[in-house]
Amino acid sequence: MERKKLSIVCFSGDFDKALAAFTLATGAAAVNWEVKMFFTFWGLNVLKKKTGRAWIGSGVLAKVFNFLMGGKRNLPLSRLNFGGASPALMTGMMKKNNVATLDELIVAAKELGIDFVACEMAMHILGIKKDDLDDHVQNVVGVATFLDASKDGHIIFI
Amino acid sequence: MERKKLSIVCFSGDFDKALAAFTLATGAAAVNWEVKMFFTFWGLNVLKKKTGRAWIGSGVLAKVFNFLMGGKRNLPLSRLNFGGASPALMTGMMKKNNVATLDELIVAAKELGIDFVACEMAMHILGIKKDDLDDHVQNVVGVATFLDASKDGHIIFI
Amino acid sequence: MERKKLSIVCFSGDFDKALAAFTLATGAAAVNWEVKMFFTFWGLNVLKKKTGRAWIGSGVLAKVFNFLMGGKRNLPLSRLNFGGASPALMTGMMKKNNVATLDELIVAAKELGIDFVACEMAMHILGIKKDDLDDHVQNVVGVATFLDASKDGHIIFI
Repeated sequence: MERKKLSIVCFSGDFDKALAAFTLATGAAAVNWEVKMFFTFWGLNVLKKKTGRAWIGSGVLAKVFNFLMGGKRNLPLSRLNFGGASPALMTGMMKKNNVATLDELIVAAKELGIDFVACEMAMHILGIKKDDLDDHVQNVVGVATFLDASKDGHIIFI
Repeated sequence: MERKKLSIVCFSGDFDKALAAFTLATGAAAVNWEVKMFFTFWGLNVLKKKTGRAWIGSGVLAKVFNFLMGGKRNLPLSRLNFGGASPALMTGMMKKNNVATLDELIVAAKELGIDFVACEMAMHILGIKKDDLDDHVQNVVGVATFLDASKDGHIIFI
Repeated sequence: MERKKLSIVCFSGDFDKALAAFTLATGAAAVNWEVKMFFTFWGLNVLKKKTGRAWIGSGVLAKVFNFLMGGKRNLPLSRLNFGGASPALMTGMMKKNNVATLDELIVAAKELGIDFVACEMAMHILGIKKDDLDDHVQNVVGVATFLDASKDGHIIFI
């Protein structure tokens, strides 16, 4: 039987939604689905090498946006963020309950061979370069390429 | 012909998105699709038996999060919430226009035989027990189990 | 080979998510997929003929909601909106990088023959009439009709 396929458009830069994306991705990979994650817009923040705020990008506006968005350490909770305290509290609750944290899920996703691709258009707009992103990002592609590679599987937008 | 299948990941705890999830679910069931709703994270608030704020959960943090999130009566509108007044106003507009309200949609979903399942991991993190949720919740499952049961249908993330 | 199909539920009225919806839609149409966009709730704001704030709708509440939501010119960025300044800044960044703007994507979607349909229920609730929306909107349909027309393709919720 052919392997099931799952492609996730990781649009959100919220901590809880990134958690959902990686939980679905690694869950699918664990039952042998072929999984692809397409990071675009705010979702790119999850993969920035600089995990804190940094002046990435070309052009003043891009630099400001990237600085304000920050990296993996700055992902807000989509509600009850409490000025950024909640993701740390949430991570504490996850550790206490032996649930994999976001960092652990990202590592697991890589080890399970999940494909990370980045959105060409979003990177252009935000002035982010492939080199600014996690080395596991294999390709920077357009949306048509991504859709074509995903056409025989499930596509989820988060 | 085989019945079409729809699985909805009900991640959001926003009033308007819960409305969208139940509208899609009951609409699909009405045309004889087999529908499954997987409640996770904020989405669990929609199904809590305590429809207002309550100190659910084990551990101080879980209790605080659950209290602040509240239940079905506390779902905020994702925009223009006006301190919680909007969902009631919106419900009034729905009644006036003979559109099913969220409460009515939930009842309809149950009557149409839509499967409610709850996310094991989210319940662990938030310290919510099966007993805290609507009795229509048949199973508490992991994401891999949910995906496997959904593999031959549509999967939507809300 | 049969054409692939993509149906997008355009629920969000956020500038960045509208951008994502139209980018996916036009990207899919560009590689010859059959694409349908179903506009509901906040998503209807993207298609209002009045692109600014206007007292659309029947009933005081509907008028107030429609006024506050506004039209295409009032779509907020889902984060870092800065009181509405960000969508214009973002559009500037897109032009600078030769990326199609939201307006250009909407025109392209129409030229590529993408089907625009509007959600009957949301229009009832918000008191919006077909005449208030872009003339490219071919039909106002219920969710069951939409799902039935989308059953053999991908369905994405944005």
